[in-house]
Formats: sequence, C-alpha cells, structure tokens
Amino acid sequence: MCGIFGYVNYLVDRSRGEILETLLQGLQRLEYRGYDSAGVAVDGADKNDVWMYKSVGKVAALRELVAAQCGDPGQRFDCHVGIAHTRWATHGQPSPQNAHPHRSDPGNEFVVVHNGIVTNYRELKALLTSKGCVFETETDTECIAKLCKYVYDTNTHRNLDFSGLTRLVLAELQGAYGLLIKSVHFPGEVMATRKGSPLLIGVKTDKKLKVDFVDVEFPEGGHGSLTEDMQHLSVQGAPVGATGSLLAAPSPLAAFRNDLRNELRHSQSRAFMSEDGVPMPVEFFIASDASSVVEHTKKVLFLEDDDIAHIYDGELHIHRARREAGQSTTRSIQTLEMELNQIMKGNYDHFMQKEIFEQPESVINTMRGRVDFDKKTVTVGGLSAFLGSIRRSRRIIMVACGTSYHSCLATRAIFEELTEIPIVVELASDFLDRRSPVFRDDSCVFVSQSGETADSILALQYCLEREALTVGVVNTVGSSISRQTHCGVHINAGPEIGVASTKAYTSQYIALVMMALALSDDKLSKTARRHEIIDGLGRISAQISDVLKLDESIKQLITTELVAHKSLLVLGRGYQFATALEGALKIKEISYMHSEGVLAGELKHGVLALVDEDLPIILLATRDSLYPKVVSAVEQVIARKGKPILICNDGSDTFVQQHSGIALRTLEVPATVDCLQGLLNVIPLQLMSYWLALQRGHNVDFPRNLAKSVTVE
Amino acid sequence: MCGIFGYVNYLVDRSRGEILETLLQGLQRLEYRGYDSAGVAVDGADKNDVWMYKSVGKVAALRELVAAQCGDPGQRFDCHVGIAHTRWATHGQPSPQNAHPHRSDPGNEFVVVHNGIVTNYRELKALLTSKGCVFETETDTECIAKLCKYVYDTNTHRNLDFSGLTRLVLAELQGAYGLLIKSVHFPGEVMATRKGSPLLIGVKTDKKLKVDFVDVEFPEGGHGSLTEDMQHLSVQGAPVGATGSLLAAPSPLAAFRNDLRNELRHSQSRAFMSEDGVPMPVEFFIASDASSVVEHTKKVLFLEDDDIAHIYDGELHIHRARREAGQSTTRSIQTLEMELNQIMKGNYDHFMQKEIFEQPESVINTMRGRVDFDKKTVTVGGLSAFLGSIRRSRRIIMVACGTSYHSCLATRAIFEELTEIPIVVELASDFLDRRSPVFRDDSCVFVSQSGETADSILALQYCLEREALTVGVVNTVGSSISRQTHCGVHINAGPEIGVASTKAYTSQYIALVMMALALSDDKLSKTARRHEIIDGLGRISAQISDVLKLDESIKQLITTELVAHKSLLVLGRGYQFATALEGALKIKEISYMHSEGVLAGELKHGVLALVDEDLPIILLATRDSLYPKVVSAVEQVIARKGKPILICNDGSDTFVQQHSGIALRTLEVPATVDCLQGLLNVIPLQLMSYWLALQRGHNVDFPRNLAKSVTVE
Repeated sequence: MCGIFGYVNYLVDRSRGEILETLLQGLQRLEYRGYDSAGVAVDGADKNDVWMYKSVGKVAALRELVAAQCGDPGQRFDCHVGIAHTRWATHGQPSPQNAHPHRSDPGNEFVVVHNGIVTNYRELKALLTSKGCVFETETDTECIAKLCKYVYDTNTHRNLDFSGLTRLVLAELQGAYGLLIKSVHFPGEVMATRKGSPLLIGVKTDKKLKVDFVDVEFPEGGHGSLTEDMQHLSVQGAPVGATGSLLAAPSPLAAFRNDLRNELRHSQSRAFMSEDGVPMPVEFFIASDASSVVEHTKKVLFLEDDDIAHIYDGELHIHRARREAGQSTTRSIQTLEMELNQIMKGNYDHFMQKEIFEQPESVINTMRGRVDFDKKTVTVGGLSAFLGSIRRSRRIIMVACGTSYHSCLATRAIFEELTEIPIVVELASDFLDRRSPVFRDDSCVFVSQSGETADSILALQYCLEREALTVGVVNTVGSSISRQTHCGVHINAGPEIGVASTKAYTSQYIALVMMALALSDDKLSKTARRHEIIDGLGRISAQISDVLKLDESIKQLITTELVAHKSLLVLGRGYQFATALEGALKIKEISYMHSEGVLAGELKHGVLALVDEDLPIILLATRDSLYPKVVSAVEQVIARKGKPILICNDGSDTFVQQHSGIALRTLEVPATVDCLQGLLNVIPLQLMSYWLALQRGHNVDFPRNLAKSVTVE
Repeated sequence: MCGIFGYVNYLVDRSRGEILETLLQGLQRLEYRGYDSAGVAVDGADKNDVWMYKSVGKVAALRELVAAQCGDPGQRFDCHVGIAHTRWATHGQPSPQNAHPHRSDPGNEFVVVHNGIVTNYRELKALLTSKGCVFETETDTECIAKLCKYVYDTNTHRNLDFSGLTRLVLAELQGAYGLLIKSVHFPGEVMATRKGSPLLIGVKTDKKLKVDFVDVEFPEGGHGSLTEDMQHLSVQGAPVGATGSLLAAPSPLAAFRNDLRNELRHSQSRAFMSEDGVPMPVEFFIASDASSVVEHTKKVLFLEDDDIAHIYDGELHIHRARREAGQSTTRSIQTLEMELNQIMKGNYDHFMQKEIFEQPESVINTMRGRVDFDKKTVTVGGLSAFLGSIRRSRRIIMVACGTSYHSCLATRAIFEELTEIPIVVELASDFLDRRSPVFRDDSCVFVSQSGETADSILALQYCLEREALTVGVVNTVGSSISRQTHCGVHINAGPEIGVASTKAYTSQYIALVMMALALSDDKLSKTARRHEIIDGLGRISAQISDVLKLDESIKQLITTELVAHKSLLVLGRGYQFATALEGALKIKEISYMHSEGVLAGELKHGVLALVDEDLPIILLATRDSLYPKVVSAVEQVIARKGKPILICNDGSDTFVQQHSGIALRTLEVPATVDCLQGLLNVIPLQLMSYWLALQRGHNVDFPRNLAKSVTVE
C-alpha cells in the first residue's frame, strides 16, 4: 500500500533528466502497491529550490506531466536527493492536491512522502492551524511536513541537524509510517524512517563494499544476528540527538568513542570509503520494497521500526528513535537473491498471468531442500528446533488476512488430522478486535506474503506479549514478521507483483502442509497418511501444469457464460471451502463481480434463496470422502433450476450423465490426495478471475481500490 | 423442511369434506416448512380404494384442486386415516408427479409421505426395478412405497401386521426420515415413524385422558424421565415384530406379559378407554411440529428416533425399530404451552413482521425468572448443575448453522472476556466435514431454533461419542437437541413461524450472554463488567421498542435508495461482524438480493475492489472501543466514492458533519453496552430485509427455495 522511492547520488554525475527517470522507473516498479496518484520532488535551479510534480492516476500520467513541465533536463547534479511516491488513498480522494510529496509551505522548505496513517493527525492539524499553518489537503501526511517546518522555525538556536529535527517530529506522531523527508535547509541530505511500514536502502558503488555480508537465514528468536561488522563501522562524528534529548549538547567525539558499544544501541553509521580512504562515489536507493531497487543494486539494508536513517555526504547513519533494551544493534547489508527477470513480465501480458503460470515452478521452490521424496521425509530448517514445543502446544492459532487466511483455512483440517492439536484460524483484525485469550502454551502461526501486513504484525506483537510461541510463514525474506517471530518458514515463491495473490497462495498452502507433516513426524500411526501426502506433493507440480492447460477453455467459458453477470457464487465444502472463498476473492478483487464463497453445507440455511436459472454458480465437486454430500448440494441447486459449473475430477460418472437432460458444464482437474486437491482446484478459479477481469476491460495488475501488501490497519 | 400431517378419526363421525379440510388446514400451518408442492391421500369410495390429490405450489392450489376433483364431500366415515404433505424439493424439481404422497403402484396399495433423505435410494431403486417395479418419479421417497408393497407381496404367509411390515422396510433404509404410511391392506391404520426428522402425535378426546402429565423440564442427561405412567399402560396384544426378526413367530400373549418390563424397552402402547371400559371416540393428529396441532389439542406425544408408532382401533402403539440398551422407555404425553394466537399473524401482514415486532416481549421471556435485575444475578436453571464442569473446560466449542451460528459469533467475544476460556465457533457441517478433534474436557454448545437442525444433531452425536459435555440452546421444548444434550437453555422466544429467523436470533443472543454471565459468576474481577451487562439487559426491551420506531424511515430508505440494486455489502467489525453477517443473510433469504456481510477489517484485502459510487453499503458504526477503526473504514469507503448508510448511535459527532460535502444517510439506534449493541443494530437490518422483500414483490413468509428448520444434511 503506497510506494515510496528515494534516490541519492553522491559524487556521481547525473542530469536532472536521468534523476527523474530513475525516480519514475522506481515508482513504476512499486505501482502495484498503489496507483491512485503519484508525485516526485527534485532540486530546482539551485539547492534552495525544490520542484514538485504530482498527478492523479498511474505513473505514466506523472511521466507525461514531468516531460511537459520539467525545467532543463540537462542540468547536472554531482550530489542530489530526489523523493517520489505512488499513492493508495486512505484519507481523502485521489487528487493532484492529495498526492504526495506534501510540503510544509508554498516555498517547499520541507517535503515528505509517507506510507501509513498518522492516527493523531486531526489533533496535530488543529494545533498547527492554531499556530498559523494553512493546510492545503485532506491528508494526514501534510501535518508531518508542516510539523517539520514548525520545529525548524521554533528552534531559534539552529542547533538541530536533520536527524535531531526528525526525531523531534517523530516524537509527536502516532500511527504508522514509512517516511522520507527532504529539505532546502539540508541540501543533499535525506531522512528515511519507518514504523510499521517497510523501508529498505539499496547501496550502489563501483568499488567492492567493505561491509559486505549476507544474512539470509530466517533469524531465530526474531533478532538480527549480531555480526562482525561492528569493526567495519566508521563512525563519523557524534550523531546529534543520539542521547534522545534535544537540549543535551552533542557529546564530544572522544567520549562517544569510549562508549562506542553502548552508543551503538542507539546509533549506527556506515560510510562507504574506497580503500585509499578517499570518499567514493555512491548512490542510495530508498524504497518500500526490493523490486524497485534490484535493477540498480543487490546490496540492501532493511530498516527496522524506529530506525532513523540519515543519508548525507555519501554516508548512511542509523539512529534509533528511542532507547530500548534488547534491540538488535546491527543492520546487516544483505544481498538480494531476487533477479530482475523475476519482477519483469517476460512473455506474459500481466504479472498476475505470469505468476499463475509460474506455479509449477514456484511450488517446487517451496519444497526444494525440504521434502525428500525418496525417503519420504520433510525437514523444514526454520522450524526444526521448535517442533517439540509446537507439538506440546495446547492450541495452534493461525492468524492471517485475505488470501493468506484462506491458505490457513485450506490446511486446517490436515493440521487437525496429523497433529491432533486443536487448530484455530483467525482473521488478524477480528482476533485483535476481540482481544482473544492467548496463553503461553499456545503456538501462533502468522501467514503473510509480504511479511508486512499491518494487522498480522499487530497480532504477532499481541501474541509475543502473551509469551506464546510464534511462527512466521512469509514470502519476503527480511520482512517484519520473519524477523519478529521465534521461528518460521520462507515459502520461497519468488517476488509476487500481481496485487491478486496467486502463486503465494499455493506456496503458503504447501508450506503449511509441510509444517503439518513435520509436526506429525513422530507419530507412527500417521506414517501411511504422511507418505501418501508426500507422494502427492511429488506429483503436484506436473498436475498444476496439466490444470493450466484449461486456460483456453476457461477463456471460452468466461466469454460465453459468465462475463455479463453481476453476481456469482462459488460453493465448496470440506477441503474445498477454502478454495471457494479464495476463488471468490480473486474474482472480486480483479473483475469487481460480486462473487461470494459459500460453504455448500450452509446452502439450505439461506443462500439457496439466491439460486435461480440466472445466477452463475461454480461448484467444487472433486472426489473425496465428502463427494456424496457435494452431489447432494449439486442436486439441491439443480432442483432450484440452477445450472452449476462443476470443477471436478476427470472421467467416470460425470454429473452430465447422471442428470440427463441437464447438461452441466465441467472443468476437469486431475485427482490428488484430498488435502492437496485445493492446490489444483484453485487454479481454474485464478484463471477465471483473470479472464473475467480482462474481458470486462480491467487491468488485472492494477485492480481498482486495492494495493499489494496492506501495511496499514 | 417439508411438513407432514396425518389425521385419524376413530368412532368420531366425519364427512370426507371435513377430513380434507382438517388435512389442508394442517398443511397450511406447516407451509413455512416448505411449499413447493403439496398433496393429500384419503380413503376413496370404499376402504380398498385410496384417492390422492397433488399439486405444485402452495396449499391454496391443492385446496382448489381438491374442491374441483374430490368425490362426494358428504360421504361419512366413522373411522378414517388421511395423510398429507407439503414439500421442499431436495431431489427432483417441484412437479405434481414429484409431490407427496408417493404410491407403491397405480392401485395405491401403499401411500407414504416422507420428510428427509433416503441416501441409499439409488441402490434400492435399482433393486426394485430389477424386481419389476416401475418408478414414476425422481424422488427418493417413492422407493419406500414400492418397498412396502414388495415386502407385503413377498410375505406369502401373510403373517405380518402393519408394524412388522414397517420394521422390515425401515431395516432397508439409510438416511433420515419422518414417515407416514397408509395402506388399503390395513384400513383405518397408519404407521408413523421417525429418524432424524421430528414427528409428534396429538390426541384429542372429549373425556379426560388417564395418562395426562406434562414434562416441561429440560431433561438433564438427555433422557425422558421414567414416569409413573407405566401402570396406566394398557397392552393390547403382543406387538408383532417386537423381537426384531420377521421369521420369529409372534410371542404368545402370556409370555409377553411376563416379560413386560423387558419388552417395554422395545414396545409401548396406549389405548384410550372411557372409564366404563368402552372404547371411546378419539382423534389423532400426526404432524412435523406442534403449530399445526395446537388448534385441535394440546395433548401431544413427541416421537423419538427409531420409534415406530402404530395407530389403529383408537389405540396408539409405539415399537422400537431396534433393541438398544439405555433407551428411554416412556414417551410422555405432554401439554403444549403454545397458544393458538402465537401462531396466528394477528394484526400483522406477515409472520416475520409480527416476530420482528414481538422482540421487545420475546427478549423479556428469554430473561424471565433467570435475570434478577435488582440483585444483579443470573440463574439459568438448566445449566446450574453443570457450570463448574463447563468452567473447567479446556475449550468451549459452539456449533450451529445459519442464523444460530451468527448468534454464537455475536457472543464469542463476551464469552472469551468473561470466561477466559478459548472459544471456538463452528459451522456444524464444516465441523463434521473436518472431523475436528474433540476431547473429553471440551464443552460443546449446540444452538438451534428448532432443535432439529440435522447437521447440528449429527455434530452433537459426534461430540457425545467423544464424551464432551454438551449444552443445548434451543427454542423448541422436546426437540432432539434439547433431549440429547446434557444440559441447556430454552430461549423461550415462542413459536417462530417466519422462515427468516428474527426473534429467535435476539433470544439466542441473550441466552448465550446469560450463559456467559452465569459462567463468570465466580470471578470477582468481572463483577463490575457483569453488573454493567445485566443493567444493559434490563434496558434492552425498551431500547428495542425505540429501534422499531425506525420502521417507517427504513421503508422510505428502501424505496428511495436500495430497492433497485442487485448487490449490497454490510460491513462491521468486532461485536458488529456477526450483525453484518446476520443482516446480510436476512436480506439474501427474503429479498434475494446478493448481500454479503464483510469484516470491515478485511476490506483492504479484496472487498474494497467492489466499492464504487453505485454499490450500496451499510456500515455498522455504533460507538464502542473499535469506533476509530470503523471511522477509518468509513473513510476508506468514502475515498472510493462509496456512499455508506450508517447504523450509528444518536447524537454528537455524526459523520455527516465530519465529512461535510458528503451527506451520509444514518439510522440512529440507542447506545448500550458494547456486547449487547448487536441486539439493537440487527433490528434495522431485519426491517430492511422485510421492506426490501416486500417492495421487490416477494412473500417474506415463503422465501423461494427455503424452508424453516433444516432437518436434512
């Protein structure tokens, strides 16, 4: 939700046109996070001047505006800071005015881009208005810019550097933010800070970085590893404000050095020097996620909550907004494993289509190195030290939102069957709203593609406070959930750009099944069942490829049957209830058709009233132990003149024959183990949603009103 | 689902016209259970002749058909058996052919009416077809009639009486049934039997019945009380087949008498004799529920599963289909507390409307004698002996379907808060499908208006097998769930005839809140909270009356805003999530508009894509601790050009002022304690669904495709 991009060049010669292109290209990669409006701020004719360009709609519109209005694109900058933003409206309708960056005043003294929600903005706005500020927009963000200027103007001693000022501003903000601040008062500098909203900094130099290691292991205990790189730190002067108080004078350099280890809890700096000690050319890319950075550099550093990064003179300083015990003191520079082609569409028309068709590979990546199909064992490294504790849990509580929630529902029954532990599945926001009782002997599993889903992170913190064991199941390495949980599984599905989640769902599903298998490892009575499932997993990739061959016939079906309808029901029961919910969600998300997933067993308790000869119904009727009950649902629907489309297994007693006279449409998928069938059944629904959206003229990668990775509550 | 009605007169002189009128009137009272088609079977010109009348649609259509085709209405019968049925199609579309009664052959030798599903009907049909039977319909029921004749014809010794024959037939049936059988071979006799589908027998005589006691207490332990009435039993001959085998010769009368107590486990008979020992005139009314019987008599006997009732010669014999240890041996004749006016519409246009407006009284009836508002205590008699056990549970699992499920969701948070026990809420069918682990230290609560909901009963049996403590929360005294659970609460809402449940929801809600209050009785730390809730309950009836005053403005709102739309979202979070689901279900059920209840916290995870300037949205925004988050949802919807209708508390900072320029429609309801607010908020939604349905031209008491009390899986 909302994308932030910042670009800093230091001792690297760039024209204004090149800088703008870098910023716009960065935004474009982030567009899937929000695309209501976009904006960019760069230096003007001189360093006391900031130019802003903002427009409604996607980045392409901004690009046109910039091309038309930008001053001399050839003007060159040796050192420069540009910030940019693509927005997903939470407060205020999309409009050029409400677009970011927001400014402190008509002179653009401070400009900010912001992701998140400042919850006390009404109070701040009232306060600042009473001090004479004139607000131009309905956004919460504007008060941050205004507050910066207010703090700057009232600091008559001018003893604040940019980071000290930022700290004072942050102290007033409640809510969540990922934030970049640029100011004419601090030319060539930028502040980047986060709380609850992801932010990372890519570093690019031609020289080899001295501090150059990777931490790709899922951090057990939720802490970044305290690594050797402290010796590489080059502390450049005392970070003002590190003591947490504006009034304290900067500590002398000597004293600071003596207390280095202590101070490192609050401040950390990196300068990138060439081996001869001469400052070296460097570029920084600050972004909401790695996909916009990977084309420039793979060396990135993930900020953590309350980190305040200050970039100037080719240096990167990280301060802490508050002094806390037990905080990790090191932000490692990591090497992204992502490849640029992973975030390109390749031969596909849309990211979503590409990701649907990637599933035969992505499910294999999820299992790689974990499932031994010969020995029929499952080893999930990130969990192994904790399996015993999880097995002894009183309950396993799965917490997630949206599609991730459906992956939990889909695997709940197999967890129950294999582990014989009560499993509770919770929507994160409802779980928090209810303040549900959680105990020390509960294990809580948090599933999130981005690992940054705001409600899931809050639920994680709620469970950590109650000392439950926490487990993360995420796609994004280095994300908040992967860092803050005790243990977990990376689903390794590769970057997912399409707003409607597809390959992440199937990989989450498999990761959870692997977890259930690992948990039941010590149960002899479950061996046969476990082997059956592992064999099923071994075939799943090829079977997904088979299902994908339905693409053309689904496209036909959509054209002839579904595209003109307003409403749609997707029915399933047992393992297929989650599939029905997930399929309906996909269709809602990108085709805007009012589709609803319904438990087939609940039909008679109300939903059947909707059924008539017109309402399209998709019925999941693959053959498992509940098949007779599903047949009964089919009969109920037919008795009410409904004409369901069946997703069913191939061959044998098709309903078409059984109900002669009524020609039911079927989409045939291969059969697999009951608890894995949902992996195959969901794919026709993904394809349906894709073709429905296309034929209704929507851009599937940019569904209206939605954005990837919901990082606000 | 489906209504069965049978009428037997013995030594009571009735004309054919009177008999038909009794049958048709009985059907009409049962019509809310299903109204696809209806049919009736009575004696023809002589006792070897059966006439049947069947028609599609409601009973009124059947009445016209009967009036047009019935032979001499004046023909008089001293003893007669008539059976009738109103159908809700599960197998086969509604058609005169598929309507009940079904017959064994064109000569109508055996005719049956049936509620339920015979799951092995395909196998039986194949078998009987191979024996030469020619099937006329697509129904499962027809094979019962055919099977009767097949057993009769192949019993060459003619040593079977009607009950022996019935037992042999039942032995072949799998599935659920409530069943009446009439035959030309046994004139003046009728068989009534049930398994999983309710059936009761009303008895009417002018004389005082000797066996005349009432058992209105909720039976603890799930067993009917073993009463004194055994001495009144008048055993008339040996019930053939009581030994459970067709081949065994009937046991001699003497032997039978010697073994009376043992045999009583399997057979029970009542003859109604006048004091001078002369057989006395008597009428029997056999029906699916009490509402169709109460206008004739209040003396009723509820059959239990596997009971086989045989009525002939003014006598009522009850056999058991199988010999089982621990079965209750007595079926008490109870006196209905229901009054006829409770099942009449009175001044209202529809039952549903009447029941909505009854809620100020029905909620008081639920609390009557249980909540002491002065002492601030709650005493629920049916639970008190079990409170300790429930408090020590590892989990409380609430299991229900449809509206009853929503009442569980609505009270889940207050259960969690007051009891600090993990609460799981399950849809009965999904709970069974998953074969969810249940343990001896779990308490399982089953909520059902009718107490006969098939999936909930199956779930109850599943939990009983696992030795969990079971608790019933039902409206219908004497229903399966009230008899089979260890303890429970009657919600005392009075008969609910409207298919869309309204007053049962608010009463279930209050019953569950009372249960939570009773469970937390021993927690001092919760005293203040408990008192707050009890005070809230004290005000709730008057507040419901206030909310009902919105009726006219809701009618207006429907006319101007909603009636023409296809889709609708109802948003709520926290306590109001359940309200949103329940409101959306009401609208689905009777207005056939595709409405969906959505957790407001999940908006951003997909549903927001549906929001535009057209889609009507109802947002539950009453002021509790989650109000700021709800405001945030309102802002998200408005940012997407949505124009939500708010159900909110009266006065103060309305959104209308806050969002000047956007005039939001509001429906203002009084404020109460957070956990009770849903009782008030649901009422505007009930009224909305009512007016929506009316203005769209639907009959709210007979929503298409739906029937009250879902007694099949």
